[in-house]
Amino acid sequence: MSGCPYFEKRHLLFKNKPPKTEEEDASQAGVNKASKGGIIYGDYLQLDKVVTAQVLQSELKGNKIHDEHLFIVTHQAYELWFKQILFELDSVREIFISGHVRDERNMLKVNTRIHRIVMIFRLLVDQFAVLETMTALDFFDFREYLAPASGFQSLQFRLLENKIGVPDNQRVPYNRRHYRDNFKGHESEMLIATEKEAPLLKLVEEWLERTPGLEADGFNFWEKLEINIFDGLNLEKEKIEKMADSEEKEEIMAELIKQRELFTSLFDEKRHDHLVSKGERRLSYKALQGALMIYFYREEPRFQVPFQLLTSLMDIDTLMTKWRYNHVCMVHRMIGSKAGTGGSSGYHYLRSTVSDRYKVFVDLFNLATFLVPRHWVPKLNPNVHTFLYTAECCDSSYCSSEDSD
Amino acid sequence: MSGCPYFEKRHLLFKNKPPKTEEEDASQAGVNKASKGGIIYGDYLQLDKVVTAQVLQSELKGNKIHDEHLFIVTHQAYELWFKQILFELDSVREIFISGHVRDERNMLKVNTRIHRIVMIFRLLVDQFAVLETMTALDFFDFREYLAPASGFQSLQFRLLENKIGVPDNQRVPYNRRHYRDNFKGHESEMLIATEKEAPLLKLVEEWLERTPGLEADGFNFWEKLEINIFDGLNLEKEKIEKMADSEEKEEIMAELIKQRELFTSLFDEKRHDHLVSKGERRLSYKALQGALMIYFYREEPRFQVPFQLLTSLMDIDTLMTKWRYNHVCMVHRMIGSKAGTGGSSGYHYLRSTVSDRYKVFVDLFNLATFLVPRHWVPKLNPNVHTFLYTAECCDSSYCSSEDSD
Amino acid sequence: MSGCPYFEKRHLLFKNKPPKTEEEDASQAGVNKASKGGIIYGDYLQLDKVVTAQVLQSELKGNKIHDEHLFIVTHQAYELWFKQILFELDSVREIFISGHVRDERNMLKVNTRIHRIVMIFRLLVDQFAVLETMTALDFFDFREYLAPASGFQSLQFRLLENKIGVPDNQRVPYNRRHYRDNFKGHESEMLIATEKEAPLLKLVEEWLERTPGLEADGFNFWEKLEINIFDGLNLEKEKIEKMADSEEKEEIMAELIKQRELFTSLFDEKRHDHLVSKGERRLSYKALQGALMIYFYREEPRFQVPFQLLTSLMDIDTLMTKWRYNHVCMVHRMIGSKAGTGGSSGYHYLRSTVSDRYKVFVDLFNLATFLVPRHWVPKLNPNVHTFLYTAECCDSSYCSSEDSD
Amino acid sequence: MSGCPYFEKRHLLFKNKPPKTEEEDASQAGVNKASKGGIIYGDYLQLDKVVTAQVLQSELKGNKIHDEHLFIVTHQAYELWFKQILFELDSVREIFISGHVRDERNMLKVNTRIHRIVMIFRLLVDQFAVLETMTALDFFDFREYLAPASGFQSLQFRLLENKIGVPDNQRVPYNRRHYRDNFKGHESEMLIATEKEAPLLKLVEEWLERTPGLEADGFNFWEKLEINIFDGLNLEKEKIEKMADSEEKEEIMAELIKQRELFTSLFDEKRHDHLVSKGERRLSYKALQGALMIYFYREEPRFQVPFQLLTSLMDIDTLMTKWRYNHVCMVHRMIGSKAGTGGSSGYHYLRSTVSDRYKVFVDLFNLATFLVPRHWVPKLNPNVHTFLYTAECCDSSYCSSEDSD
Repeated sequence: MSGCPYFEKRHLLFKNKPPKTEEEDASQAGVNKASKGGIIYGDYLQLDKVVTAQVLQSELKGNKIHDEHLFIVTHQAYELWFKQILFELDSVREIFISGHVRDERNMLKVNTRIHRIVMIFRLLVDQFAVLETMTALDFFDFREYLAPASGFQSLQFRLLENKIGVPDNQRVPYNRRHYRDNFKGHESEMLIATEKEAPLLKLVEEWLERTPGLEADGFNFWEKLEINIFDGLNLEKEKIEKMADSEEKEEIMAELIKQRELFTSLFDEKRHDHLVSKGERRLSYKALQGALMIYFYREEPRFQVPFQLLTSLMDIDTLMTKWRYNHVCMVHRMIGSKAGTGGSSGYHYLRSTVSDRYKVFVDLFNLATFLVPRHWVPKLNPNVHTFLYTAECCDSSYCSSEDSD
Repeated sequence: MSGCPYFEKRHLLFKNKPPKTEEEDASQAGVNKASKGGIIYGDYLQLDKVVTAQVLQSELKGNKIHDEHLFIVTHQAYELWFKQILFELDSVREIFISGHVRDERNMLKVNTRIHRIVMIFRLLVDQFAVLETMTALDFFDFREYLAPASGFQSLQFRLLENKIGVPDNQRVPYNRRHYRDNFKGHESEMLIATEKEAPLLKLVEEWLERTPGLEADGFNFWEKLEINIFDGLNLEKEKIEKMADSEEKEEIMAELIKQRELFTSLFDEKRHDHLVSKGERRLSYKALQGALMIYFYREEPRFQVPFQLLTSLMDIDTLMTKWRYNHVCMVHRMIGSKAGTGGSSGYHYLRSTVSDRYKVFVDLFNLATFLVPRHWVPKLNPNVHTFLYTAECCDSSYCSSEDSD
Repeated sequence: MSGCPYFEKRHLLFKNKPPKTEEEDASQAGVNKASKGGIIYGDYLQLDKVVTAQVLQSELKGNKIHDEHLFIVTHQAYELWFKQILFELDSVREIFISGHVRDERNMLKVNTRIHRIVMIFRLLVDQFAVLETMTALDFFDFREYLAPASGFQSLQFRLLENKIGVPDNQRVPYNRRHYRDNFKGHESEMLIATEKEAPLLKLVEEWLERTPGLEADGFNFWEKLEINIFDGLNLEKEKIEKMADSEEKEEIMAELIKQRELFTSLFDEKRHDHLVSKGERRLSYKALQGALMIYFYREEPRFQVPFQLLTSLMDIDTLMTKWRYNHVCMVHRMIGSKAGTGGSSGYHYLRSTVSDRYKVFVDLFNLATFLVPRHWVPKLNPNVHTFLYTAECCDSSYCSSEDSD
Repeated sequence: MSGCPYFEKRHLLFKNKPPKTEEEDASQAGVNKASKGGIIYGDYLQLDKVVTAQVLQSELKGNKIHDEHLFIVTHQAYELWFKQILFELDSVREIFISGHVRDERNMLKVNTRIHRIVMIFRLLVDQFAVLETMTALDFFDFREYLAPASGFQSLQFRLLENKIGVPDNQRVPYNRRHYRDNFKGHESEMLIATEKEAPLLKLVEEWLERTPGLEADGFNFWEKLEINIFDGLNLEKEKIEKMADSEEKEEIMAELIKQRELFTSLFDEKRHDHLVSKGERRLSYKALQGALMIYFYREEPRFQVPFQLLTSLMDIDTLMTKWRYNHVCMVHRMIGSKAGTGGSSGYHYLRSTVSDRYKVFVDLFNLATFLVPRHWVPKLNPNVHTFLYTAECCDSSYCSSEDSD
């Protein structure tokens, strides 16, 4: 960036001369250091690679089309940011995988990096506004030169989906083929590798299963919650039964019955497993309990940061889905829907991916269905309070935050 | 982008098979073409260069700091977009330099590309939000490894300033040295070259000087306007003089005198030249007249698109200045102001560039001072109407819009 | 706004005293006028009404919930901006209805106001980020107090849809009832009135039908285009037939046949009418021709501004659909999907409105299917050039742009 | 919002009938409740007040100018959001004033609400893009009708500044008068009241002074830090002295001396008080220590949320200053700078408020000057670890989070 003094080391010790007079403008008080050796801006950023990588196919083929340059730069900017997202994602996954997450000091890092991914996706959603300055007619002029390149071939985006946790069996096929068939050997292997690794979803699941307070021999949140809810519903039922007969009474009773069914389903582990098998739920039964516990006791000191994490995970899901939807909108504008005429299925394929099937943390959204009045939430006794006020650290000899960075 | 069907050529003729049955999901109706040869996504975008150019200095020096990756990617994204802005800017300048702008069909291209620059700058202003997820403490951990690299060394940003028209004599010096002294031989020559070329400001100036309606032997806008304004002011004066004496009358009269002085200055060419010599005005006297004429008659068909162009030029100025200001805000957060303690002057240097000195099209803003009531604007007679309704095209044998793209 | 000097009249004549000395800071050179009578800021904006209209139902019912305030203010901000959009929309429709649009000077106004609607919708899409700072749990605490109020009851949003041109028969029913049944008598009548008025879609349609160059006894664009396209396709066919037999040849031929079918459908008026009857197309056959003509000759001076208008209309459609989608995303977060449990259908209802059925200018998008290489576009002869360079004005005695504003 | 099902109560019990058949579209499964009584959307939001408060002065004066409507709505939207910011700010201040903040469970609320203010300001900064669709010429047409109303008279904005903590003695005077003189009696009293109350700055200061670890008889952070820093600097000095004489050695030594001066100043309480008296620092010496301690140990569980709070406070400062700067940019466009011509000082007044004088939490930024390498930061012993892992709650009988909301 222009004049960015970020790069200037401050506590290192080789400034040469103090400003000569006091009156000199503070804006001129610095010292040029570029002549002293060391790395300079353009080399640091490898701009010889980055800003020379724009080769127009239309130009190669003898018909240079101005707007192809924008098309290339926009996609490169997307890929640059995908690289950054993958970098953050891998570092967060590493904290979970290594067990460093058990030292709660590392939660700040986890949260900060997940939040950074949120901020990048927010930018990427807005970035479509730039490409939308190209009209369908401008695009038509160079489209033919691009085949068979396709954004579907973005390796980084597929890696990203896998590492977050889009499951293979929920993917919409692409022209009746498995998504991986669009990639070459080396890339295909990278994709297989990520399918075998634990995605963020699984790592968060394991972490949620360890939520303090779930222990059956301890606070036993789940059992207490079940009791409170059905006690509450029974009380409601008694109240309703005392009402004089009326259409309103019937309606309220019908609603009560529905509520009871809803909550009965919540405490039915078999039903949960059935929903998981259909892909409608993604988290284990225990993890779901952990998430709901964090929701209800989010103000407890130990749960404040975990609650923010769950919120940020929903943000990522929402932004990825908005990104997909904005993508669909742009494609509609650029190539139309071609409804009924056959040919490429681009618009319809993309539209089918704007779906809850691609929402990795869909359970965190759907838990909103199971909220209850505050007075139904099990009270914390002093013992529980104590552990919800006291963070966990690993053994003191290891008691250091994540090392490598 | 994921699944982006942009790349698929549609009117070329090598799809292989129609979908087998009607019931097949429209989303699966396409055909994979990647196996047929031709360029693929990653090669097209040269991702082997773009997403491998992130080398952390901290890692090289044995102390890998996580956040340096974000720092690199953010700056590379800025440079990618600077490349795009330069590309658009050069194409617009070429239309002006080649005279193609005289064929008014090319105004659509000019406007679209200038507007695209506006949209890119809007993104760049927002992009700071991503870098701001890095705290001062995170930055401190790797800052020392970067010296003496400095954002001041961004060649593309300096080229951009020169090509738009930041004049050398308005630049704030950097540590008491000429801005060009921070660049190596080859780069310095590129900068000198752009200082010698006509910047956008000059090209727009020449175009404004040709505004139809300025001709002394034609509509003679400027003289007519002067007459109308002073007639108007005289009428006001007579009205005021008829008022009974009062404090209010005195005030109104004083205000009238100020107005008269203001407008007297507008029609004083010598004063204009004096302001130009001080850098307070940048456009020639004739160009200023053209701009005001376009302002007043912006609804005339021939002036609608030119008026949009003037608006977009102000947008660019405003966004560049917002970019500078956002930059200052971030630097303040990252390294503090170090007020009174000496050392680097980064914050103060940057702050001094958030100034009207760096507003290239400052005259277009300041013309707002010289607006007048609609009934003071000279009426158009039918002849003038005719030419303001009829666009100019060059000789029919050349009557084609810009060729090369 | 703070210190906003917008309000200060400048060319009126009652400033009292000039600054005493030159050295005085320019920032203090103004004069306070508030004491002189006239309207002041708070009264002008009727803040006594606007910022006192936040009454929390939860507070009225004895259980004040903090976040309800945000909920109210956000919705009020949406309604304020809907009011502004309706105001702009009505003014544009009036220009079309009154015939002022035939004086091409009024196109600047039309374009500016449509563009303003675009900018407002862009803000409204972003505005969800504020409401998303409220979590599902915060919302749950006051949700019960709001029944049966529902955003579905937003009169202004329905008026807006009607005035743009969402057709009654394309609307998704709401709980199996007609959308209008959710409104009270007075409001229902307002809705019926807007259904009877010409929406923006119809007005744009009429305007497109008048596109110069469509006249059968003039340039006759449509017939010329048909001839060129089929000549072009025949040439392609001959070229293919000369190829040696191969799988590739077969594929290319199959693709050619598909292209021919596609374009045959374009010139088939009966098929067009059939698609209109199904709601898949919305514009008349003639208007579609006008739109395609503007697309192909967008650089001609008379078509530059119309082309921008068509682009802005697509922007509005896209942004409304993004608004709907963002809305769905937020609702999912706030109340879950309640899949399979019955009860409110909010999420599913809203999701069903994110559909091309609600895209009013869907034809402008789908025209992208019918683009052709530049050399297939009929050449303009000098006569046509002349009228595409000369704007239309109404009779000179009326030759004034729209009066009152 | 359209179709927003937020309002629908779910756990209340009066839905009437289940959907008849399974096949029925889930989107139609809800039940209309508006006919059952209770509040409806328009009444809830008091739209009869909010969307009828747009009275154009130009229309009252017989010369309706279209763009005045946008001007009014934009300002009303700003004031609506100012109301919301004040509401959040007051609730946060109340948590601090009442001492509830000592129960660390309330930190989630504090953080969430401060973050909400950040998100609102982000929207307000973007909102200028809408008003910028009005040109200087459009504004000129109705400007005269507004006098003497001025944005300077926005009571809510002044209240906001006072409640955050813009000190009276740092304010730029307005036309040589005290800012409060622009307000009427009742409003002026409200402003005086807020000047007497503790602003957010003071409340945060008191809270920072209580940072655990500052106790002289405990961990004694400040003394430990001072020792470490000067030990570190001495070690550096010894290393340098061993170098062979050279220009480089001289430079490094000069830099070291500057560093020592810098840190000497940090531990000089008198110098701190002097800077406070000049307004260059705003926090007490103890609070500054607390902030630096939170910076250095931000990963400790008890400091993670406080660190986020400090970051959000800087966000508010930065966004308010960006808002001011965007405001300046717009004013420049609307009325020019009128440099040298006298008259209103609007532009120059506003420009002077874009200053660090108006940055309330300027100390949090400037602390970036005093960062040190990680190994200079005092190590935590197990005792300190314990209290930095254990949150504070008040006595169990009061151990409840803030009641009323």
